[in-house]
Amino acid sequence: MESSSGLLLVEPTTWYFQSMFRIKKIYAYEKSKYQEIMLVDIEGFGKSLVIDNLIQSTEKDEYIYHESLVHPAMILHPEPKNILIIGGGEGATLREVLKHNTVKRAVMVDIDEVVVNFARKYLEYMHQGSFEDERAEIVIMDGYEYIRKAPSESYDVVILDLTDPYAGEIAKKLYSEEFYRETYRILRGDGVMVTQAGNSFFYNKTYKYVYENIEKVYPQIIEYWVWVPSFTYTCNFVLASKTYDPRKISIEEFDERLCERGVNTRFINGKRYYSLIYMGVIIGDLEK
Amino acid sequence: MESSSGLLLVEPTTWYFQSMFRIKKIYAYEKSKYQEIMLVDIEGFGKSLVIDNLIQSTEKDEYIYHESLVHPAMILHPEPKNILIIGGGEGATLREVLKHNTVKRAVMVDIDEVVVNFARKYLEYMHQGSFEDERAEIVIMDGYEYIRKAPSESYDVVILDLTDPYAGEIAKKLYSEEFYRETYRILRGDGVMVTQAGNSFFYNKTYKYVYENIEKVYPQIIEYWVWVPSFTYTCNFVLASKTYDPRKISIEEFDERLCERGVNTRFINGKRYYSLIYMGVIIGDLEK
Amino acid sequence: MESSSGLLLVEPTTWYFQSMFRIKKIYAYEKSKYQEIMLVDIEGFGKSLVIDNLIQSTEKDEYIYHESLVHPAMILHPEPKNILIIGGGEGATLREVLKHNTVKRAVMVDIDEVVVNFARKYLEYMHQGSFEDERAEIVIMDGYEYIRKAPSESYDVVILDLTDPYAGEIAKKLYSEEFYRETYRILRGDGVMVTQAGNSFFYNKTYKYVYENIEKVYPQIIEYWVWVPSFTYTCNFVLASKTYDPRKISIEEFDERLCERGVNTRFINGKRYYSLIYMGVIIGDLEK
Amino acid sequence: MESSSGLLLVEPTTWYFQSMFRIKKIYAYEKSKYQEIMLVDIEGFGKSLVIDNLIQSTEKDEYIYHESLVHPAMILHPEPKNILIIGGGEGATLREVLKHNTVKRAVMVDIDEVVVNFARKYLEYMHQGSFEDERAEIVIMDGYEYIRKAPSESYDVVILDLTDPYAGEIAKKLYSEEFYRETYRILRGDGVMVTQAGNSFFYNKTYKYVYENIEKVYPQIIEYWVWVPSFTYTCNFVLASKTYDPRKISIEEFDERLCERGVNTRFINGKRYYSLIYMGVIIGDLEK
Repeated sequence: MESSSGLLLVEPTTWYFQSMFRIKKIYAYEKSKYQEIMLVDIEGFGKSLVIDNLIQSTEKDEYIYHESLVHPAMILHPEPKNILIIGGGEGATLREVLKHNTVKRAVMVDIDEVVVNFARKYLEYMHQGSFEDERAEIVIMDGYEYIRKAPSESYDVVILDLTDPYAGEIAKKLYSEEFYRETYRILRGDGVMVTQAGNSFFYNKTYKYVYENIEKVYPQIIEYWVWVPSFTYTCNFVLASKTYDPRKISIEEFDERLCERGVNTRFINGKRYYSLIYMGVIIGDLEK
Repeated sequence: MESSSGLLLVEPTTWYFQSMFRIKKIYAYEKSKYQEIMLVDIEGFGKSLVIDNLIQSTEKDEYIYHESLVHPAMILHPEPKNILIIGGGEGATLREVLKHNTVKRAVMVDIDEVVVNFARKYLEYMHQGSFEDERAEIVIMDGYEYIRKAPSESYDVVILDLTDPYAGEIAKKLYSEEFYRETYRILRGDGVMVTQAGNSFFYNKTYKYVYENIEKVYPQIIEYWVWVPSFTYTCNFVLASKTYDPRKISIEEFDERLCERGVNTRFINGKRYYSLIYMGVIIGDLEK
Repeated sequence: MESSSGLLLVEPTTWYFQSMFRIKKIYAYEKSKYQEIMLVDIEGFGKSLVIDNLIQSTEKDEYIYHESLVHPAMILHPEPKNILIIGGGEGATLREVLKHNTVKRAVMVDIDEVVVNFARKYLEYMHQGSFEDERAEIVIMDGYEYIRKAPSESYDVVILDLTDPYAGEIAKKLYSEEFYRETYRILRGDGVMVTQAGNSFFYNKTYKYVYENIEKVYPQIIEYWVWVPSFTYTCNFVLASKTYDPRKISIEEFDERLCERGVNTRFINGKRYYSLIYMGVIIGDLEK
Repeated sequence: MESSSGLLLVEPTTWYFQSMFRIKKIYAYEKSKYQEIMLVDIEGFGKSLVIDNLIQSTEKDEYIYHESLVHPAMILHPEPKNILIIGGGEGATLREVLKHNTVKRAVMVDIDEVVVNFARKYLEYMHQGSFEDERAEIVIMDGYEYIRKAPSESYDVVILDLTDPYAGEIAKKLYSEEFYRETYRILRGDGVMVTQAGNSFFYNKTYKYVYENIEKVYPQIIEYWVWVPSFTYTCNFVLASKTYDPRKISIEEFDERLCERGVNTRFINGKRYYSLIYMGVIIGDLEK
């Protein structure tokens, strides 16, 4: 047995177990007033964005996360024109949104200018030019503030691409009932919202807090999770809407809408959407 | 930040990243001529069986693995009476099989008597008395040999609960075309076979080898995977049969058969079976 | 680069860095009301005693620690007859003491009967039959209590083979001024005392507390440290005496006394004793 | 127990155990054609130079290594004027050499310009302006080549501040008999040479190879080791000379020479020099 030495990134999957990734190369390292941002080559996973020592996305599997976050929400809406993304500084969520040719305007709000500039400079493989798309608008601002000040009924889809809800007090605010009420307010009458929500097996209490807050605000709600290899666990998502029932769109409709809008995907399609909603999620009992 | 010291179990998720689990207590430790067997308390996951330093199953999540292995195969068969399990020394696969009241005889073949005795002594929470069930027959023998010598057309369902196909040359034999031909031979005319098959994202080449070997032998074949938290990845399964098409059993039929046979489950049901087959699997490109 | 998986023992060298040892085999595991005791094979270091996940001694390097603890104190005394050892359950300190043919009686006091029985059963390579020596007397008792009740002026040498002073409140008592006063009381007029004292580079504050407590009680005092490979750091010792000046014994005298008393050593001798006292120790500034 | 996550530097103390350091901050990262160079903040040890993932020196303890390397050799020589340093890119060896006011010229040869420029830019706390000292001459060249081409009898002291002898084939050349013959050739009639030599407990075979090569070439030779906390082990040194016997310089002479030459030290002095040569080294038996 050879020794395993060098630079390791130890990810706190939960408080009781960790995963160790090998860093082959550091491409770039910057520090903003909010966080530390690195672009590294992770053994097996390729170029990866790491913020505050947490893997955000890797070349090999980011499509699984970003397609699962964006397309179910976008497809549930029959004609999504105005889209709001909170977070998602690397530009991959924006990239997926812009694939839908129905989109007229996609506003991406990230609190950290350094992250966005870092993405422009280094993460071409992620954003693929989305920042330069004329439909895109990048705003550097606190997401909560942006939404609080946004006019009512101004968006068709709101996509919350945030840090995990158990990442601290600031994160928690973006999963609160008040916040969801604000998202509801700025959505049009048939608006759709989706958020990533951490993992419900390991963080059951926090997850329930998130789910129940959304349930108090939105009449339509569905939950699903998907395994993201570099996260070593499944990532939960909660999809909510003012009118459309996520169970009512058929496999065929899902695929048709993708096709009509010119959206190519590697992971998601009608069958997999049904897989996700049929699986549901498992709520663990491990959180203290 | 506190230091994380003590006894760690480092699991080689793949050759390029590992997961670290904390061992809170060693309950039992034995060494057979084949392997080292431990019963330990793993932080978060509870009592866990560890063989050759690899987690086999934990109190918290073994039901996900064992239900996903056993019930799709058992339900696909309209009346499974004679069942053969290769491996599965801890008795949990046997426990799930015996839940089906159609079963007249369940033969479990494990190469290592020490594992089976260890299970009898320490893993009551796993086998739940299955070893004492009068329909159960425990055979200590090499699984390959057992199948080679078994009479033709003697089983309804064969369940292969084996170590991963990339675990070495001996393991590989149990995933070979010849071996699958033998399983085919001993199955009745409408027999069903299922095997766990490692992970197809990280071990794509090995997985393809397994899948294609089964495909050469069986006319009906389907693949699925399921996330097992303590494995930190999804576990792939391949389900094959001589006649029944796994896509033809409906959600309702799946649930009805579970109900008629008196099978209670925590994870699997008709919807989740469809989730699994709709999801399919992702074949990675990471194996050298 | 191969993956490094399996059972690791992570040692908290300090709160800010750790060392990882590979456990090749668990020979024995027992739990007493005080602690967990393991005999394991550590890659490179051989059979090793591990208590509460901390390496106590390994086959490859225990002689460095035990010879450095015992012989400077024993040699400083011109004719050590009655010896008291507190701690040292594995029997190796006793083994070194009994090498001196001046010894009439060596009392070893350990709080944990399970450790002593474990040592008798499994650690022959450590104690080498010392427990059966007719001069040896094993007492199961709290060391503090034993010393408090022992008659005054009854020992020539007291050897404190204890857990580290930063190991918790109970340990700290055995490094207190009151405790050293008690050791002083039970020593004859020319008695000698030695204690291990953790590491003064990483735990400077705790070490100073220990050193200063001894200095308040004993007129003669000297400090030294020695590198123990499996500890990954130097282990500090404090040697004190009622009359003899540790700087006054010459290299030649040291070697002569070892020789006259029939003591064979692998590590310590007159020159190395001088090396240790000339080096002194480095007091770090890292402890919070 | 809190989780320990983030960026870890895992150091291969030997092939059978590792040490894990926590990286708090990456100050700078560069890649040359030879190696990767990082300036990081290591928990507990402060600003640290790391080359190819191996800790070279840390703020907290670099003085122990650099003083132990430089001063015994410099003091052994009665009037060291011309000094050659091979390696030592961070400038700390040069800094120690220049403390001796006898020095007229100190040539430092490092193969990697990137390291030297990196040091100039970021490691002021290490070199303390030595690169700008008018007696210093920095040469970017392969050390072996430089020595092969240097005129005979041109130096008083040669200091080899190299990577470990077990670091690969290229390193090994700089510990070969032929290389030592070249160092002998370029030294004046009373010249002195010193090299660091890895660790003799863990790498006994490699160490013996180094020691015996030097012994074949130099009439006077002595070995010593010193514990460097961030290395987690003792670092061996071999000091050799054409005429002066390292055992003949007294404690008082050592201290006088330091004083006369205006050399202030934190670690080394006459007594500690004697400590080092009295201790000698322990040759392990662990290398395969």
